[in-house]
Amino acid sequence: MQSVVHLLSGDETEQETALAIARNLLDDETGRIDDVAVVVQAGGISAAKRGAETEEQIQGLVDDGVSFKACSNTLAMKDMDESDLVAGIETVPEGAVEVTRLQSEGYAYMRP
Amino acid sequence: MQSVVHLLSGDETEQETALAIARNLLDDETGRIDDVAVVVQAGGISAAKRGAETEEQIQGLVDDGVSFKACSNTLAMKDMDESDLVAGIETVPEGAVEVTRLQSEGYAYMRP
Amino acid sequence: MQSVVHLLSGDETEQETALAIARNLLDDETGRIDDVAVVVQAGGISAAKRGAETEEQIQGLVDDGVSFKACSNTLAMKDMDESDLVAGIETVPEGAVEVTRLQSEGYAYMRP
Repeated sequence: MQSVVHLLSGDETEQETALAIARNLLDDETGRIDDVAVVVQAGGISAAKRGAETEEQIQGLVDDGVSFKACSNTLAMKDMDESDLVAGIETVPEGAVEVTRLQSEGYAYMRP
Repeated sequence: MQSVVHLLSGDETEQETALAIARNLLDDETGRIDDVAVVVQAGGISAAKRGAETEEQIQGLVDDGVSFKACSNTLAMKDMDESDLVAGIETVPEGAVEVTRLQSEGYAYMRP
Repeated sequence: MQSVVHLLSGDETEQETALAIARNLLDDETGRIDDVAVVVQAGGISAAKRGAETEEQIQGLVDDGVSFKACSNTLAMKDMDESDLVAGIETVPEGAVEVTRLQSEGYAYMRP
């Protein structure tokens, strides 16, 4: 099974829950979760900034195999680019299209 | 691919994100998005009111082919009917049933 | 059709919407909804506590056939166990894994 977490809120509690859920999916002891993706856009981008309090946590998730994908539309609107993000975060042209694509491939969706 | 956006929050930032995401899905340059639906219910109904600040934006999305579906249960609870909504918004008996139906037909879900 | 409602917010309005949506899915007059599940985790757990204002409402949903599943990881973090929850709520090891499993079995997802 595969899961995509949609991190698009600027609310810190919702961001913390999203990252905790990504970790818990990754650590699932039943071995049923084959892949975890996190699509970051809109207000969620603040959690993915280099230097954010969540940097270490995201770095750990990336190192352990979670794929983080940040929305280029959001980055452009905020005058940011990939170099402003925690290392290892990829970009996609539009987060919502990526969320659609992943679900069409069978990923379960969750929005903390 | 098809996408349904669930607009059910009264929070203005979440409403703005929902409408921006509907627009970005519609404008996807890769041509992979065949249909975009927005199901409006609960607190989200405030964004769909005739005269709301979001009226022009929603009108533009409707004109460009996004189907907006408002929950009749929510309208009844708020003593509203279809005539109180931005022109072109349809109604459905229950928003959550419509969201279920669309996903059962293969629509990807997202909740900004 | 089957639906899973993700109740993971501590926000009272969002909790109320989640429970109202579970009820509306259950009461769907078209008879198309075969099962409704509610997965409770993170901040959502406050709504599922024995003695919470939502206890009677949840009890009614459980009695009418909605399956409530609370995340054991969340309970452990809050020093709670199943006996602290409204009667009839089951536990699952990790809420996000359960949400993934249900979607992989064809449940539609919604996050009020």
